[in-house]
Amino acid sequence: MMRVNLKTSLVIVCLLVMLVTLSIWTRCGGTLHSFSPSFTGRHDVLAKANSMRNGERSVGDATGSFEELDCSINGEYTVGCRREGEEVFLPFSFLHKYFEVYGKLASYDGYERFEWSHSYANVYYPKAKYDPRGVYMYFENYNVEVRDRVKCVSASEGVPVSIQWESQGYYYPTQIAQFGLSHYSKNLTEPEPRRKVLEDGSSEKSSWIVPVGASLARTYDAELFSHVLHFQTAGRGIQLKLDHVLDFVLSVQIQLSVVDNSSLTVVVQHRERKEFWNLHYTCSSQLIHAKDEDVYHGMNCGEKVQWRSLTRDLFVDLQKGLVLQNKEKRKISRSKFKISAIMLTGSGQLDNLTLSTSEHLAHFYAAARWFVSNQDFKTGGWANTVKRRGAPGMLDLLPGWYSAMGQGHGISVLARAYHLSGDKAYLAAAVQALRPFKVLSKDGGVLAMFLNQVPWYEEYPTQPPSFVLNGFIYSLIGLYDLITLAPKNFVSDATFLYEQGMKSLKTLLLSFDTGSGTIYDLRHLTVGSAPKIARWDYHATHVNQLLLLATLDQDPLFSSTAGRWVGYMNGKRAPHN
Amino acid sequence: MMRVNLKTSLVIVCLLVMLVTLSIWTRCGGTLHSFSPSFTGRHDVLAKANSMRNGERSVGDATGSFEELDCSINGEYTVGCRREGEEVFLPFSFLHKYFEVYGKLASYDGYERFEWSHSYANVYYPKAKYDPRGVYMYFENYNVEVRDRVKCVSASEGVPVSIQWESQGYYYPTQIAQFGLSHYSKNLTEPEPRRKVLEDGSSEKSSWIVPVGASLARTYDAELFSHVLHFQTAGRGIQLKLDHVLDFVLSVQIQLSVVDNSSLTVVVQHRERKEFWNLHYTCSSQLIHAKDEDVYHGMNCGEKVQWRSLTRDLFVDLQKGLVLQNKEKRKISRSKFKISAIMLTGSGQLDNLTLSTSEHLAHFYAAARWFVSNQDFKTGGWANTVKRRGAPGMLDLLPGWYSAMGQGHGISVLARAYHLSGDKAYLAAAVQALRPFKVLSKDGGVLAMFLNQVPWYEEYPTQPPSFVLNGFIYSLIGLYDLITLAPKNFVSDATFLYEQGMKSLKTLLLSFDTGSGTIYDLRHLTVGSAPKIARWDYHATHVNQLLLLATLDQDPLFSSTAGRWVGYMNGKRAPHN
Repeated sequence: MMRVNLKTSLVIVCLLVMLVTLSIWTRCGGTLHSFSPSFTGRHDVLAKANSMRNGERSVGDATGSFEELDCSINGEYTVGCRREGEEVFLPFSFLHKYFEVYGKLASYDGYERFEWSHSYANVYYPKAKYDPRGVYMYFENYNVEVRDRVKCVSASEGVPVSIQWESQGYYYPTQIAQFGLSHYSKNLTEPEPRRKVLEDGSSEKSSWIVPVGASLARTYDAELFSHVLHFQTAGRGIQLKLDHVLDFVLSVQIQLSVVDNSSLTVVVQHRERKEFWNLHYTCSSQLIHAKDEDVYHGMNCGEKVQWRSLTRDLFVDLQKGLVLQNKEKRKISRSKFKISAIMLTGSGQLDNLTLSTSEHLAHFYAAARWFVSNQDFKTGGWANTVKRRGAPGMLDLLPGWYSAMGQGHGISVLARAYHLSGDKAYLAAAVQALRPFKVLSKDGGVLAMFLNQVPWYEEYPTQPPSFVLNGFIYSLIGLYDLITLAPKNFVSDATFLYEQGMKSLKTLLLSFDTGSGTIYDLRHLTVGSAPKIARWDYHATHVNQLLLLATLDQDPLFSSTAGRWVGYMNGKRAPHN
Repeated sequence: MMRVNLKTSLVIVCLLVMLVTLSIWTRCGGTLHSFSPSFTGRHDVLAKANSMRNGERSVGDATGSFEELDCSINGEYTVGCRREGEEVFLPFSFLHKYFEVYGKLASYDGYERFEWSHSYANVYYPKAKYDPRGVYMYFENYNVEVRDRVKCVSASEGVPVSIQWESQGYYYPTQIAQFGLSHYSKNLTEPEPRRKVLEDGSSEKSSWIVPVGASLARTYDAELFSHVLHFQTAGRGIQLKLDHVLDFVLSVQIQLSVVDNSSLTVVVQHRERKEFWNLHYTCSSQLIHAKDEDVYHGMNCGEKVQWRSLTRDLFVDLQKGLVLQNKEKRKISRSKFKISAIMLTGSGQLDNLTLSTSEHLAHFYAAARWFVSNQDFKTGGWANTVKRRGAPGMLDLLPGWYSAMGQGHGISVLARAYHLSGDKAYLAAAVQALRPFKVLSKDGGVLAMFLNQVPWYEEYPTQPPSFVLNGFIYSLIGLYDLITLAPKNFVSDATFLYEQGMKSLKTLLLSFDTGSGTIYDLRHLTVGSAPKIARWDYHATHVNQLLLLATLDQDPLFSSTAGRWVGYMNGKRAPHN
């Protein structure tokens, strides 16, 4: 009886369960054939069930609140959308390509959201009136020498070598100036560096390991008025063991003997993986070469033995050596390395061997010296020694061309160097650098006339002219820097050029305004092509430049335009009629 | 045994079913509490289950394939999105506002899709080289007189009266020309109209109902060299019963006596609702007025009794009368009405009373005559008699200003009228109309100089100049029309102006190119404001104008630019760097 009762109850429960099962199954949109092993969820089931209906598939509850739907885009192609009642939803992957907007999923304490960005660039709002004694724009954020298009920092000149337009490498005045200006600015914004003097021949002496046959002596040098370290090796080098982290800028005054194939070598080691690299500084005229763990920077000593100042960011030198061998490890971190030794080979002398967190002013002055040494005395120009291929409808720029941006940037460097040092050589070079501003680009200068009427200083002195906006404004900033920092009797030319240029800028500025962004140059007007839209980082540069100019010039054009252009970065548009 | 066996079998089946139930339930994402009565589908269940998780709700299968998600737009505001795996979907209602794109659900044989349009305007590709003897652009599609900004067609002049900038109404040369050019073009593209002559005093006679005290006679008129209908009424008018549909253009030669307060009245009736309206044509100098079912158009007969040609689109006259009383029934359809009677009141004469499908050439010549009669003999200009408020930063245009577009359009009308008729009065007026092109806008003409350098014919001769693109090109088309249709010894000025203008257009055309659309004018360069983006129909006008010019001028600028600008209408953009 007990057994039968139990069985009867079970049958009743069983029938109830079957009823519920059927109910759930119906709600789930089930059909009998979906009991197949391929059942992976109701989406798929319904997709199959509805695939007969012209591809329109319900996803969601039984009332069909959410459906797949084709979106026909301008009658040209189709994108898979979703529909929910009256609302149609479009996939971001399509919007990203169609409008070039940006987006990413972001999570905050478990709250996930999608962050839509109209642009990817940053605006830097000036805190005060622009002062040429202070930081240059926001260049304290620049790290010119680590850029991919920098082959390395030259050990002979202490300035970057560009490979932007020629893989062999060349000195690009604009880049050298940005290198100088970024270090000038970092010097003002970063904390005072740690400095550890390892050897100065007198008060600071290190324990060098001198192998048999080698010699080391601390002698007085009449040229430096200082005790220096004299070394000579036969086979193995003289070595200084170190275990130094973080402070990766080496500076030294050094005199190497060319005939002995001498070098100063810094051994850099990975702190965990025990890999090591030898950074060799030699007399070679070869800029840089690398093989396996050896990276060679040539100081191009020349015939005459002489004292040189060498300031090296060892980490940058290591990176460039790795990239050169296609061992591109961009993500390597400064904190993962240490300096494990310094070696001296051949013969020579050194003084003030130092490791520092940074030596920004040394880099800045390297740039400033480059501008003094590499200026064409007659024209005042800093030649771009590579050909730059012309855009469609334009002639190539042949080696030797000057850039208003390069001239202006160079002036910004030199004016600051004069301001800091009082050395008139910098001032003279800066004043001389104004000359190409007065020579038409077709005659080798940087001046072009818009509609034969409006003077413009050309970043690229193309034929026909290109009227690049950002380079022009940088040239104006250079002029302003000189006007501000030079003695009054040196500024009349710069003042004329600045005022003329500002007038032109006010005349043509809004030619670059598309109502939703900016145009990079006015080539479309001279060659009849499509306008070249400025990508967002150039657009942001335009904005940042206007914000700077608005601190110098009361014309509301600068502030109102900057405000509108900031809006474009957030998807605002100029009104239409 | 049997029973027990059955029960045992049932229990086994039951257990199996329970197992399957559990399996399905798990796949459906079920939890026990969702067995509640509020269960209406898995969307709701899961919504509740997940509502604790910061409002993020799963919609879809248990793997969470579809979720609500906040989209943060440029960090400024939030929009409700959907997420499906790696894809985020954004609602079109947001995209429509953010990007001003257009979309609608459309259905084709049960296949529903969403149609996304970047713009709403049309491009008309010319089939052949533009010929000033042929249709003007695509103006055969224009219906100028039905536009909201047309108060009515003047019964005295036969041309539209604008209320765009002044509600009282004024003659706007540009609009009058477009009225003329559209009818000239329709005359070429539409089929020959049906015409029914109701009364010409001789061969066609109607059965007029003449009440007691009124008289009707058919007499010979020495001025018209024709028999005409003479009428005189005391109380009630003379009536002609009609039952005429579709042919709603009435034309008649008529002479009304001012002193008798005479009128010709057409009774128009709704075919279903039996409502009727009386369209009165009187001698009044009042342009139009309306009260209830009576609409009055004044022919402004003046003191001297004279023959007038009256050509009326009765349907337009009815519409304007209704709008005037705010009985705006824009959607009324021509086919819903019939003409049920014509009445003559007072005294006068008429001839060639006709109902037609259309009388395009009559309308065209009305416009051409207006341009001959209303030209300032000294300046050659057609005055815009209303003030036009200046845009921010611009002075108002004071009454009397000339428009290069109005001049050019007028020339297009007159050149065609001369071509059709051979009447030298039209030619003389067209040539005279060139004069304002040579006078600076600040001196009362339409000529402005871009950067003191590039001549431009101003649609609006503003101070400072505005450099509207479409109006300038229309003025060039007018010049081209005259050059083409006038005898050779009349075209030297027009040729100079056309060539000068085409050169300017080529110089400045791409100043209007934003890389994703076009700018309406260059005011931003003269007043320092935001550029005024052309809305899509103006952009399409720019494109259509370039396509026309490309048939006249081999410079690839026109065709390449037109092609790119067409692309903008489909969401294409100029490249960025």
